[in-house]
Amino acid sequence: MSGAETVSADATETSAGFKAIGEQQYFAEFFEQFDAIADEMKLHLDDGGLFGIVVDPANVGMCRDSLDREALEHYSATGGVIGLNLSRILDILGMGNSEDLVELELDTETRKLHIQVDGLSYTLALIDPDSIRKEPEIPDDLDLPATMTVDFADLKRGITAADMVSDHIRFRTGTSEEGKLAVYVEAEGDTDDVDLELTHEKLVAIDAEPGDGDSLFSLDYLKDIKKPIPKDAEVRIELGEEHPIKFHYGHTEMGDGGLAGDCTVMLAPRVQSD
Amino acid sequence: MSGAETVSADATETSAGFKAIGEQQYFAEFFEQFDAIADEMKLHLDDGGLFGIVVDPANVGMCRDSLDREALEHYSATGGVIGLNLSRILDILGMGNSEDLVELELDTETRKLHIQVDGLSYTLALIDPDSIRKEPEIPDDLDLPATMTVDFADLKRGITAADMVSDHIRFRTGTSEEGKLAVYVEAEGDTDDVDLELTHEKLVAIDAEPGDGDSLFSLDYLKDIKKPIPKDAEVRIELGEEHPIKFHYGHTEMGDGGLAGDCTVMLAPRVQSD
Amino acid sequence: MSGAETVSADATETSAGFKAIGEQQYFAEFFEQFDAIADEMKLHLDDGGLFGIVVDPANVGMCRDSLDREALEHYSATGGVIGLNLSRILDILGMGNSEDLVELELDTETRKLHIQVDGLSYTLALIDPDSIRKEPEIPDDLDLPATMTVDFADLKRGITAADMVSDHIRFRTGTSEEGKLAVYVEAEGDTDDVDLELTHEKLVAIDAEPGDGDSLFSLDYLKDIKKPIPKDAEVRIELGEEHPIKFHYGHTEMGDGGLAGDCTVMLAPRVQSD
Repeated sequence: MSGAETVSADATETSAGFKAIGEQQYFAEFFEQFDAIADEMKLHLDDGGLFGIVVDPANVGMCRDSLDREALEHYSATGGVIGLNLSRILDILGMGNSEDLVELELDTETRKLHIQVDGLSYTLALIDPDSIRKEPEIPDDLDLPATMTVDFADLKRGITAADMVSDHIRFRTGTSEEGKLAVYVEAEGDTDDVDLELTHEKLVAIDAEPGDGDSLFSLDYLKDIKKPIPKDAEVRIELGEEHPIKFHYGHTEMGDGGLAGDCTVMLAPRVQSD
Repeated sequence: MSGAETVSADATETSAGFKAIGEQQYFAEFFEQFDAIADEMKLHLDDGGLFGIVVDPANVGMCRDSLDREALEHYSATGGVIGLNLSRILDILGMGNSEDLVELELDTETRKLHIQVDGLSYTLALIDPDSIRKEPEIPDDLDLPATMTVDFADLKRGITAADMVSDHIRFRTGTSEEGKLAVYVEAEGDTDDVDLELTHEKLVAIDAEPGDGDSLFSLDYLKDIKKPIPKDAEVRIELGEEHPIKFHYGHTEMGDGGLAGDCTVMLAPRVQSD
Repeated sequence: MSGAETVSADATETSAGFKAIGEQQYFAEFFEQFDAIADEMKLHLDDGGLFGIVVDPANVGMCRDSLDREALEHYSATGGVIGLNLSRILDILGMGNSEDLVELELDTETRKLHIQVDGLSYTLALIDPDSIRKEPEIPDDLDLPATMTVDFADLKRGITAADMVSDHIRFRTGTSEEGKLAVYVEAEGDTDDVDLELTHEKLVAIDAEPGDGDSLFSLDYLKDIKKPIPKDAEVRIELGEEHPIKFHYGHTEMGDGGLAGDCTVMLAPRVQSD
């Protein structure tokens, strides 16, 4: 995620030139994950591609996402930051199909973004980046020793099942009947419980010597966060003891097997008072 | 329907061991028809399979349904009755696909039902059977001389059409233009009428010497009752003169052509005061 | 549109015999476009087929549509007009599939319309034509010099995009970058704009020497009007300067390549006060 380094203090500087042309699906996936957490975002027009970090008003969920210039047909940017309304730009992208070429171009005089989708031109008013919630830091030095990769389909199933009985969901590591490391996704309701075991065989990958993890999270956030994740994604989970959880996945693979960008979502734990 | 004989007076006895494993579709179909009439049910864990009878609060609609042990991969039960919330168990079953193996197991100590669907474990709190509405009798000696079998698709069509003009629907036997026995499904609205003729050719089967039938029913009940009936089912109708109507159909056929269980729904007639 | 000539002053005369049999899709398409504009209609039972004109209560949208007798299996009518509730007859037609044969027959004694769809008989009460809003004139001599034909898919796309930013939509002719005639579909919102260019290449047909057109319309009407138009239709547009717009399309083609009828929708412009 080369873009991460470019988040500078001068995030409110006005941008100079910017033009990007690429398939609709790359832009759509990139913006959708931000939209699950925030209404507006500061979009960084970096040399290496598009980049952003958002946090929700309660400071519980954060998302850091990038769209590499290599994924696009054309990309030229001289740096800078613009403010975007996320549902607006997603509505516009929704006018095209996944493989339609979309063009984004910044009009530096009017401070508007011109978006073209198959003959349709859309002029989007930008938001003053200063008026948008400050970008959070997503710390890389948290104590999250339990690291494993799961099929998104399994993760989604656990979230859906947990939602049937509770407002909260627990992720924890443990040992299966066969004595092997397993991940448990659990929810306790007032009367009913749900428990999904992802055995060693079900996990896509596990760190060589993973530590223990056991933390509780709000389902409200997880239900939103899961929506934009591609169905066939493999999601790396970083888990600690009563610590935040991180979900990490790559965007749609391109023809040459590379990645269009990658996304990290972090969720603060719910304090277990009782 | 061997289970019918086992409905004993001691329906509130606590059950001993119970475990059943089978395809999701058999359990789902079994519980769906009860759910169309009631919120909770007493589930009989009989030697021959699962069994239940429910009635709605207004005492208008009743359902008696069974799921034979032969339809399942594994079945062991030592009798007894447990109380279930129907929408809860249907939500859980909804986490699996129709051919997924589902396991139901009673924890006799905690009095909870453990349900397993493809790695997902659900612990469902049971309801005290004594707190559930008393099971009705579905009388077998009613005067319902008009007995015929129809394709469910035709029955469904008549109900949908009747609902366009009225709150009530009439089923009656009559004679078609060709002088043969036919079934008429009719509804009279304030201004418009609907009338579906199921001619002799359209009927799947007719009793050798059927009697006359002509009764009126509430569409509210019929609209709910029809939802869980399998699309390709053949439904036997028993009809009388201002008497209840009975619908009878078998559950999904298994590989060997047998039935997984069978279901009887009875609906009280609407009194024709005017 | 041979039916147009038969709209006589005696639109309230009682009709004599009428019977029509044809595929469900022809009747459904015919009535759907009226339903987008009005709740009730006067249906003319002309010698050449069915015919009607409706206007909405605000006098902004009008629809003139015909269903030719050649599209039907059987048609006999001795003239006259009947009053219909449009959502009612569309509900009934909805009980059949597109190729099901539907029979409409007028019972001249009871003044009811009998509708048969695959064994289902529906008796529809008619409305006194005198109680239905007077049929408008759709003038043929308006000054609408810009006439071109577009794919309905393009028109629909422009309407959907415009609806993202505004309540109004502008249709205007202009000159593309290549110096050729083009049609522009535009919407100006408070902050954002949308603009669809239908270049010369995108247009299905253009009049030899079209004049200029530039008029503004309410999206509320256009969103309703577009729904019943067949997805693969080609729509002829007649446009002027601050004048009404006319959309013209033919109904489903029959096996022999003919048309089942044709439809004209006219929409009054929004006055541009500011």
